[in-house]
Amino acid sequence: MAPPIALVTASELAVQAAGQNRQDNKASTLASQDVERSNRVLRTFRCLIADLCEQFKGGHPGSAMGMAAMGVALWKYIMRYSPDNPNYFNRDRFVLSNGHACLFQYAFMHLVGYKHMTLEQLRSYHSERTDSFCPGHPEIEHEGIEVTTGPLGQGVSNAVGLAMATKHLAATYNRPGFPVVSNKIWCVVGDACLQEGVALEAISLAGHWKLNDLVVIYDNNQVTCDGSVDLANTEDVNAKMKACGWKVLTVDDGNEDIPTIVNALEQARAELQKPVFINIKTTIGIGSKVAGDAKAHGMALGPEDVANIKRESGLNADEHFVISHETYGFFTEVRERGQQYERRWEDLVEAYGKEYPDLADEFARRVKGEMVKDWTKIIPAKEDFPITPTPSRKSAGLVCNPLASELRNIMVGTADLSPSVNMIWKGKVDFQHPDLHPTCGITGDYTGRYIHWGVREHAMAAISNGLAAYNKGTILPITSSFFMFYLYAAPGVRMGALQRLQAIHIATHDSIGTGEDGPTHQPIELAALYRAMPNILYIRPADSEETAGAFIAAISSTESPSIISLSRQNLTQYPQYSSRDGVQRGAYVFIEEKDADVTLIGVGSEMKFAVEAREVLQHEYGIKTRIVSFPCQRLFERQSREYKSEVLQYRSHTRRIVVEAYASNGWERYAHAAYSMSTFGHSLPGAAAYKYFGYDSKAIALRVKTFLDDLQQEGIDDLDGEFRELNILHH
Amino acid sequence: MAPPIALVTASELAVQAAGQNRQDNKASTLASQDVERSNRVLRTFRCLIADLCEQFKGGHPGSAMGMAAMGVALWKYIMRYSPDNPNYFNRDRFVLSNGHACLFQYAFMHLVGYKHMTLEQLRSYHSERTDSFCPGHPEIEHEGIEVTTGPLGQGVSNAVGLAMATKHLAATYNRPGFPVVSNKIWCVVGDACLQEGVALEAISLAGHWKLNDLVVIYDNNQVTCDGSVDLANTEDVNAKMKACGWKVLTVDDGNEDIPTIVNALEQARAELQKPVFINIKTTIGIGSKVAGDAKAHGMALGPEDVANIKRESGLNADEHFVISHETYGFFTEVRERGQQYERRWEDLVEAYGKEYPDLADEFARRVKGEMVKDWTKIIPAKEDFPITPTPSRKSAGLVCNPLASELRNIMVGTADLSPSVNMIWKGKVDFQHPDLHPTCGITGDYTGRYIHWGVREHAMAAISNGLAAYNKGTILPITSSFFMFYLYAAPGVRMGALQRLQAIHIATHDSIGTGEDGPTHQPIELAALYRAMPNILYIRPADSEETAGAFIAAISSTESPSIISLSRQNLTQYPQYSSRDGVQRGAYVFIEEKDADVTLIGVGSEMKFAVEAREVLQHEYGIKTRIVSFPCQRLFERQSREYKSEVLQYRSHTRRIVVEAYASNGWERYAHAAYSMSTFGHSLPGAAAYKYFGYDSKAIALRVKTFLDDLQQEGIDDLDGEFRELNILHH
Repeated sequence: MAPPIALVTASELAVQAAGQNRQDNKASTLASQDVERSNRVLRTFRCLIADLCEQFKGGHPGSAMGMAAMGVALWKYIMRYSPDNPNYFNRDRFVLSNGHACLFQYAFMHLVGYKHMTLEQLRSYHSERTDSFCPGHPEIEHEGIEVTTGPLGQGVSNAVGLAMATKHLAATYNRPGFPVVSNKIWCVVGDACLQEGVALEAISLAGHWKLNDLVVIYDNNQVTCDGSVDLANTEDVNAKMKACGWKVLTVDDGNEDIPTIVNALEQARAELQKPVFINIKTTIGIGSKVAGDAKAHGMALGPEDVANIKRESGLNADEHFVISHETYGFFTEVRERGQQYERRWEDLVEAYGKEYPDLADEFARRVKGEMVKDWTKIIPAKEDFPITPTPSRKSAGLVCNPLASELRNIMVGTADLSPSVNMIWKGKVDFQHPDLHPTCGITGDYTGRYIHWGVREHAMAAISNGLAAYNKGTILPITSSFFMFYLYAAPGVRMGALQRLQAIHIATHDSIGTGEDGPTHQPIELAALYRAMPNILYIRPADSEETAGAFIAAISSTESPSIISLSRQNLTQYPQYSSRDGVQRGAYVFIEEKDADVTLIGVGSEMKFAVEAREVLQHEYGIKTRIVSFPCQRLFERQSREYKSEVLQYRSHTRRIVVEAYASNGWERYAHAAYSMSTFGHSLPGAAAYKYFGYDSKAIALRVKTFLDDLQQEGIDDLDGEFRELNILHH
Repeated sequence: MAPPIALVTASELAVQAAGQNRQDNKASTLASQDVERSNRVLRTFRCLIADLCEQFKGGHPGSAMGMAAMGVALWKYIMRYSPDNPNYFNRDRFVLSNGHACLFQYAFMHLVGYKHMTLEQLRSYHSERTDSFCPGHPEIEHEGIEVTTGPLGQGVSNAVGLAMATKHLAATYNRPGFPVVSNKIWCVVGDACLQEGVALEAISLAGHWKLNDLVVIYDNNQVTCDGSVDLANTEDVNAKMKACGWKVLTVDDGNEDIPTIVNALEQARAELQKPVFINIKTTIGIGSKVAGDAKAHGMALGPEDVANIKRESGLNADEHFVISHETYGFFTEVRERGQQYERRWEDLVEAYGKEYPDLADEFARRVKGEMVKDWTKIIPAKEDFPITPTPSRKSAGLVCNPLASELRNIMVGTADLSPSVNMIWKGKVDFQHPDLHPTCGITGDYTGRYIHWGVREHAMAAISNGLAAYNKGTILPITSSFFMFYLYAAPGVRMGALQRLQAIHIATHDSIGTGEDGPTHQPIELAALYRAMPNILYIRPADSEETAGAFIAAISSTESPSIISLSRQNLTQYPQYSSRDGVQRGAYVFIEEKDADVTLIGVGSEMKFAVEAREVLQHEYGIKTRIVSFPCQRLFERQSREYKSEVLQYRSHTRRIVVEAYASNGWERYAHAAYSMSTFGHSLPGAAAYKYFGYDSKAIALRVKTFLDDLQQEGIDDLDGEFRELNILHH
């Protein structure tokens, strides 16, 4: 894609000025002066990094020092961004996948003039300042940082998501002469990121989709914590990337040769067919005594070595954090150029608005991160749902597909489970390269909003974070798979929660009811993870109405991801009891009963066992039983103490028993006892699996009765947290 | 490696007989008869698969039908195994990574004569029989199944572990003329497995280690659930495998051409340098109306189609589950040959014992899965530990390294965190190909027991399952990484728990004390997952003595994996209170106090906050406080009700408050309130991070006092599960 405007050809000038034409006999005096200047800047930068790690005797100096030249190339010559407005919409995005090298990013942000990134802030790296903008890994909440990176392999996956977002928005909104979305994604990775499975999944997808707006820059220093990379990896990385559909460029001297790096980056920007992988050879901790060694990776270099580096660099060994006027001057044009980018983009968007008023109107709402239509009206009403037994995965389709159809900010994808998760809407277009002609005949293009992730759950979640991070609210990613495979996806889901990025994860086949696939596919313990994870909603709706409620909660929750946990099997519908509003409160009284002996807490796909057991308890044993529906612990925790007490009736004589086919961990807060799972599942047809594990109204009722009898016999009024597992029939 | 004995050249004969030499003009009558016979067997097999899915209208027929020819090649001609003794030690191992195609394996096991795999058992697939040997994915607890597969990508990783085990045992015990370990690993993967990150990590490692005893057979049918594979994957798989260091072979007609398949498999067996990837093109659901289509993947074909397949195959459409005498006869030599393999191996081992009695003695113990030395004597005594503050990751090294040094069944590895996890013992040898000469100079060979996994946590766990599954007790894998990255590894750890495979996971940097790396590296919610996961011990020791206890528990737990959760930072040592025996009971009284008002539950790396808060409570507020150490919930759950009550003092007036820097979910069973985390962490030096989140003896004591005051003021005696979060200072 052509640059939006034939703007500053900064990089071309720079390449020339910095001596790209040194081969020419008549290399100008200016050029050689510039090379010297660049080299002084590199040395200053490296000494600054060394000082910043030295002050608190820790941090990661080596990679940041080794990447100095690529940093100059990126921040001075290549990237189109505006330090004065880090959120300028059409900016190039930078992702540091090797996030431990964060000083690299922070220091360049300081040098090019991000206002908040003062020298004082830089010096807060590894300090006890609680308001530092310089945490040990880059964090999205600080200006100028696109995504939080740190867990290796995820940054590059996020970058793939950012590149998808660019491609998708460009295809949707750009018109001839009006490239309102035209940014590039620049992602730096280290050796480690390229070993992580999540990165390999994402790399494969980027090649498949031919995301030519993505450039991955490989800081090839051949060192990880354990030592040289060849201790654990001897593959041909370039050949592997080519096999994955990437264009591969190499730079032999990544330590000093800024012009060649700039040249490679420019080639990458101009690439029209493929994502680009630039393999740049560097020396970790260059200039220090441990250069090229793992010792340069994750600890301060020591005062002697730092002093020596300074002396060798022509700096005063006794001075610290010295940044010369020349160094600042080297980057002065960046801010002005950034302002120009921004102004010209604004002019472009204004002209676009005159030519394409409706489209521009929608585009403006997307830029603001607003919904393009009133979504609340699209959610089906209770009476629109079938009253016959329905799998909640089907209910989710009934709720979500009209939303996905009408709301162009929604992108829905599946980790190869289209036939199972019911997330396909009429007229859906696949997100694909337009030239792809798959064997099955289902083509697509970049305007498509349905994503075939392949069997890559972790990348699905991590890339979705990139989609959501492109610009707050612009894209709402919806993923889908079996709930069990959200364990594969968990590190990505966690990073979404940590970054407050909205995404909705549709997790079907959420219990032993999943059946024949057996224990490998039956989640038992996974809900405990997501119920404990900060800043995420894990919602298990009991029927279609509650599924509508789950979507309302998830869409309203713009500062967190949500997981909607759904059944494979048919669920009884409870229109007389279930309430979408109730779901918003996390738990609510489903069936009231005065002076009840027992409250059965029914959860999601297992609600019917609670309701049916109530019948048996009431009619066979005369035990008065009320039912609470409890789809979401996190939402319930936000309620008032009064509401909680009203629902759970604390300190009454009513015993609370939760019925769920999961491990009971965490339910002790709400129940005195659990009818739950304490082993892995079993391969049996869904109904038979439930039966095998004692999920049967009569068995449950009998155990509840025995529990009450036991307490009476033992004379226990106050259980005092001595929680009871009632489902002791386990095999 | 040469075959152990110049035994039956079954496959050579077979290739000839089945018409490999058809190019020869004089192809024998016998050969053409055999081709016809093979083809009838293939058709019979496919009809059997179709029938088995049809009976309960479900299952995965397509791949199993498509792979029939490769199944004949493997079970009749190639694999060295003994149906009469599925556990014969030196057997070739077969792994079905695309586990949903399990009928493929079950049906061949039936045909070659595994006694327990009767036709009646085959017909229990997808039935309600609770004692079926034919679950929806292969499960290790059933004879003849090497590993439980199902979550895609893990089977191939397990196979890498099995191949490592073979390499390692062969290098350790084989002597010239005595190849007592010489088996091969045959692993079938589908398109999906090759997309999963965990598989890509494992593939990279297998290439690095040049595991030529591993053959991965790719059932290349180009179909997954969503449709044709090219919807989500268009990479050049063969080129990618070559780049990863694999030898690649291809078979164009995998549907019928048994001789070519056999030939490729033989080439693979003969390969001396690299793992082998055989790309075999097949047609999913071959013979059915939906052949080559995703519809053949995961549902029954329907009675009409099945009848038609039978007619086309020359079988009676009205008969079901028909296996002709000819078909059984086709495989009759397999059992006899298997008995021969076994007898000759036994003879070989006997002769080996005469030549190398000491080695053979050790080998025999390894085969039996016994420890080679009395490990209990190797664990340091309490008085051997330093009493100065020590990080528990260092304590773990003090306990584990002598064990690893002396016990040759232990293999220790790290996901690129050697300098951090302290798992290196003096004289350790790396597991490496002997020709590897890494840049850092640390060479190794296949006898090595220290594994550099690279930055591949998920594969580390999944491959370790393969190491453990080779033969029960023969190898005890110990993995290591930061605790947070055991979220990446979680699907592999789970599969170890599900399969009852012993492994010990050393998880360091286990709390916000991990410090500057920030929230991406600080686990908050992860313990909740592992405390809820069935059949695993999650143990958080508080000091060196408890760390010794954790190892004792983990080593004793031969039917489950364990995670030992350790601090980065210095921990106060409590030799006067801590007890390795106490750890075995999960929780124990650390500091007793008569008529205590409060029990503070101290956990692992946060114990000192509990102990110090006790001082403040006692001396500043006159609140009598006892301390319980609670390293492992699972072990505590196994204790008697009396013991539990003794430790926790149920229904006394003593309030129980847990102090831990994790989410409190699950502690409600043991405590009335928690001083815990409800947000993600923060990038600060470890001590400052604790302080930032209120972990400070005075702050804790004050909140505990306020809690007691509140209860008094509210007149609440019985909290009745109304759990309180005391650490409300969160930012």
